[in-house]
Amino acid sequence: MQLGRFATLSLAVLIGCGGAGARETMRDTKPAAAPRSASSALASWNDVPSRRAIVDFVERVTTEGSRDYVAPDARIAVFDNDGTLWAEQPMPFELAFAVDRVRELAPSHPEWRAREPFAGILRGDVAGAMERGGRRGIAELIAATHGEMTPEEFERVVREWMSTARHPRYDRRYSELVYQPMLELLDYLRAHEFRVYIVSGGDTDFMRAWAEDLYGVPPAHVIGSQAQLRLERRGGVPTLVRGGEIEFVDDGPGKPIAIERTIGARPIAAFGNSDGDHEMLSWVASGPGPRFVALVHHTDAEREFAYDRDARSGRLAAALDDAQRSGWTVIDMRDDWRVVYPPE
Amino acid sequence: MQLGRFATLSLAVLIGCGGAGARETMRDTKPAAAPRSASSALASWNDVPSRRAIVDFVERVTTEGSRDYVAPDARIAVFDNDGTLWAEQPMPFELAFAVDRVRELAPSHPEWRAREPFAGILRGDVAGAMERGGRRGIAELIAATHGEMTPEEFERVVREWMSTARHPRYDRRYSELVYQPMLELLDYLRAHEFRVYIVSGGDTDFMRAWAEDLYGVPPAHVIGSQAQLRLERRGGVPTLVRGGEIEFVDDGPGKPIAIERTIGARPIAAFGNSDGDHEMLSWVASGPGPRFVALVHHTDAEREFAYDRDARSGRLAAALDDAQRSGWTVIDMRDDWRVVYPPE
Repeated sequence: MQLGRFATLSLAVLIGCGGAGARETMRDTKPAAAPRSASSALASWNDVPSRRAIVDFVERVTTEGSRDYVAPDARIAVFDNDGTLWAEQPMPFELAFAVDRVRELAPSHPEWRAREPFAGILRGDVAGAMERGGRRGIAELIAATHGEMTPEEFERVVREWMSTARHPRYDRRYSELVYQPMLELLDYLRAHEFRVYIVSGGDTDFMRAWAEDLYGVPPAHVIGSQAQLRLERRGGVPTLVRGGEIEFVDDGPGKPIAIERTIGARPIAAFGNSDGDHEMLSWVASGPGPRFVALVHHTDAEREFAYDRDARSGRLAAALDDAQRSGWTVIDMRDDWRVVYPPE
Repeated sequence: MQLGRFATLSLAVLIGCGGAGARETMRDTKPAAAPRSASSALASWNDVPSRRAIVDFVERVTTEGSRDYVAPDARIAVFDNDGTLWAEQPMPFELAFAVDRVRELAPSHPEWRAREPFAGILRGDVAGAMERGGRRGIAELIAATHGEMTPEEFERVVREWMSTARHPRYDRRYSELVYQPMLELLDYLRAHEFRVYIVSGGDTDFMRAWAEDLYGVPPAHVIGSQAQLRLERRGGVPTLVRGGEIEFVDDGPGKPIAIERTIGARPIAAFGNSDGDHEMLSWVASGPGPRFVALVHHTDAEREFAYDRDARSGRLAAALDDAQRSGWTVIDMRDDWRVVYPPE
């Protein structure tokens, strides 16, 4: 792993542990979501090939009697998060959270002034700090900002940060930097009885703290990297505590593995934006029956950011080549989306 | 771990890696499940304290305006499997599967004749084989019977076994040895918009092969021990393969950990029958708000089996003491259930 590309991957991914009777229906559609026509449903999309491919796929798999019909139970769609559902520049938002948390905790840690990556972060040189601190530095950053709390305590800290922190370029809350066209896509799929999961390199509990509010995706549908978790008795009460280390990295081959473990089925649709999604996309694409696989391509330097092969964060090279070879859908952010973020 | 008690725990548990290491609604009730009255719903239960406690709890948490009302999204119930939803004597059914599989595969493994636990199993001395083979023997048994297959291949093997193997005492298929009163309880909870999960020491894929048919519990709601899983390219196609080793043991403290990781919430109801469920039960019991925690107590030597403190399989001691201390519900199989298994 090249630490010069510190922001290529989300925090957990950087650590790189390896990447390795009656019938219940599994609907998690919106309670009263009446199927809407695609034209009103995907309002922020231009009339472009990517949008037409989405609508064509959804209509084929949901039309009874169609050769490609898929029963609701098997309608599973997975989405990467950073760079796919919300922005990830100039650094993954979870890294911004960790940086802010170091600043907040610094008064109780005078020793950080002399120790990377904390020293650099406190001087404002995040990139340099991550490079100089190396792998061990990243592990320490995660332990100091994500560990030794109960999941409930961690959730409170993340929620507090999300409600106050602002993105340096837009001066908006991070929660406002979700992609409006993708929100509409989530709704459109759910209205057609798809189960929607997030499958991201981010920490699972970090994402669960806001995924339901932002995307309507409940905690059980958030799959991410996993911190150590242990059961302790605290005052006689069994208590789960997040340890400082990452036990499972949900990136690369980790994504199909985590999907199989959690869902027990291969999704029929997958959306990503970087090489960390490559294995997930090609695994989904190679399943039997109708499949839909798409990459969000960041081509919009004006409204968002433009990056792919040389990106520090969200590097997209092998998966883009494969998309072209395999005929996957590529969503061109500049040309395909009428708006990027929800209106202010 | 005492290997003399080879059948105390299910296979995976024996290996003992340590045991840790727009709004979507999450309904998985039956599509058109109209709430039924408890009297028709729990027909195989006698009018006993355990049944009344169940009905009282469900009515309190589902009656709007009640002080104990719980919104449907938080209505999560977890069930152990072996000894809680189906029988587990004279040995856990997954062990019976492994034994049958050894016999089936033996012709291609002449070396097994001289090597425990295979040699003993092939001579019909399962208990002795497990004791003499020790920990390493159990690991080899699992690798030989559960590993180096895709999840789909393993599912086929398990389904084939379930459709043919018969229980030695009852001469019925294992799938017929589910507890009728518990099937009714699953239905009753789902009819009241509970999400029902299985949380068992058994191998997740082993249980997924039949949990939906037997209990109406879909694959994503089956939480169990986890085999290694790796992603390989086979003929250019990304393929998940189960390795021979167990990576996560879903027993003891592993159960609350797996629940938190998979569901991201603490259930409000939990059902178990052995000390392997103790941590799950006490963790569920100690959450805020209304809680329901119950033990199935095997007291019926005539219709089923009678065992607790000295059992080889399904040992129940510490959790029974705690149940008495803490006022958990104890389901007395002999007195509380009108029938045990579904009628032949």
